[in-house]
Amino acid sequence: MRLLLLSNAKTEGMAYLEYAIPHFQSFFAGKIERALFIPFANAAGDYLGFEAKAAVALAQAGIKLESITRFADPVQAVREAQAVIVGGGSTWKLLRDVRALGLLDAIRERVADGMPYAGWSAGANLACPTIMTTNDMPICDPKGFDALDFIPFQINPHYLHGNPPGFKGETREERIGEFGKLNPDTWVAGIREGTGFVIEDGAIRMVGELDCRVFKAGTEPCEVPARGDFSFLMSSQRPCA
Amino acid sequence: MRLLLLSNAKTEGMAYLEYAIPHFQSFFAGKIERALFIPFANAAGDYLGFEAKAAVALAQAGIKLESITRFADPVQAVREAQAVIVGGGSTWKLLRDVRALGLLDAIRERVADGMPYAGWSAGANLACPTIMTTNDMPICDPKGFDALDFIPFQINPHYLHGNPPGFKGETREERIGEFGKLNPDTWVAGIREGTGFVIEDGAIRMVGELDCRVFKAGTEPCEVPARGDFSFLMSSQRPCA
Repeated sequence: MRLLLLSNAKTEGMAYLEYAIPHFQSFFAGKIERALFIPFANAAGDYLGFEAKAAVALAQAGIKLESITRFADPVQAVREAQAVIVGGGSTWKLLRDVRALGLLDAIRERVADGMPYAGWSAGANLACPTIMTTNDMPICDPKGFDALDFIPFQINPHYLHGNPPGFKGETREERIGEFGKLNPDTWVAGIREGTGFVIEDGAIRMVGELDCRVFKAGTEPCEVPARGDFSFLMSSQRPCA
Repeated sequence: MRLLLLSNAKTEGMAYLEYAIPHFQSFFAGKIERALFIPFANAAGDYLGFEAKAAVALAQAGIKLESITRFADPVQAVREAQAVIVGGGSTWKLLRDVRALGLLDAIRERVADGMPYAGWSAGANLACPTIMTTNDMPICDPKGFDALDFIPFQINPHYLHGNPPGFKGETREERIGEFGKLNPDTWVAGIREGTGFVIEDGAIRMVGELDCRVFKAGTEPCEVPARGDFSFLMSSQRPCA
């Protein structure tokens, strides 16, 4: 299994996905020419516009993106893809549409066979056991919270510590703590913007420069440096390194 | 129908619910001595601790709070309540538990008969047609997004305009805009902290001092002053005043 799971696409002062170009280059390593793009997180349904926006950065990494909406048979398109790239936006709409089109099992089968999977934000949420650690507003019912289940832990993308001044709503840490109350056996990795995970054949490492904050019920949240050991996330039984 | 739907409980420099005491006093107007407290938004399940925390402010408004978890038959407790007060926390756990206990219909029947309903944050989300405009992390599956449906519009509590500096995730306005793409006929009212709505026999007014930002697909978001006319929210067919 080969996964590249990124926190975000937009970065202050950079073009869309620009920060991620070296990560795509390294992950695909010149072996992939075209990738099937899953654009359903776009709530407005502007799939070809989304394809065009993402294609700029992927082209600089040597990858031609093709939206799955260009194919008459989306399941067949997954079966024939060299790689799948899942764009961010609404995790809810993404999961709803991917489920409705029968793509969950199709993607699982190919990824189990070694097809590379890359995603950012909602596309990283989709790789988790469930979408329960999304930040997104639940704008539609995905008919079940279960997702691709490629990894045994949950990702919280766009992780932000604390609240802006004067705002007294729950912090991200409080929300993830609530998740832990009901899901005490699951690690949650809060990945800050500009970071992500590469997971290859059971080995996990972070890309980007910022620390990752990890959470599990019954343990104090802790910061793991970007070049630290994240292997504990791959087993719910192991403590934070 | 009599509703008091507040954005939040915590305010900088004030005790829990302290800002809301005059709103409770005015809403209950000395006619209610005890209220049934629905504490299921507390993800930790510390229902009596939550009751104790909320009871302080309610006592100052002349109301004795009693958690529904003190009663052997929760549906019967709703049938016999003078008022229902629904605390904030996780909208997802609240809806899951209220649905599982058969309380949705019980509360609807009593509120239709004139029993006052008050809630903050998750308790305000619960009064809407669905919980699709909650800010909360989906920590459990509520088995359907439909809620009490007391009002024809959606509330987004803790409304915050824009993003903190450097944060490039979706803004609240962008998230509500995504809701509008899939739910184009529904008004969304972003209520800022310290504000809320009183709805009595079809008439709606805001309490608190901050403007309310309202959203609907196909119209520009606009700010309605706290003392402005919110009657358009009560009909999906009417434009913003």
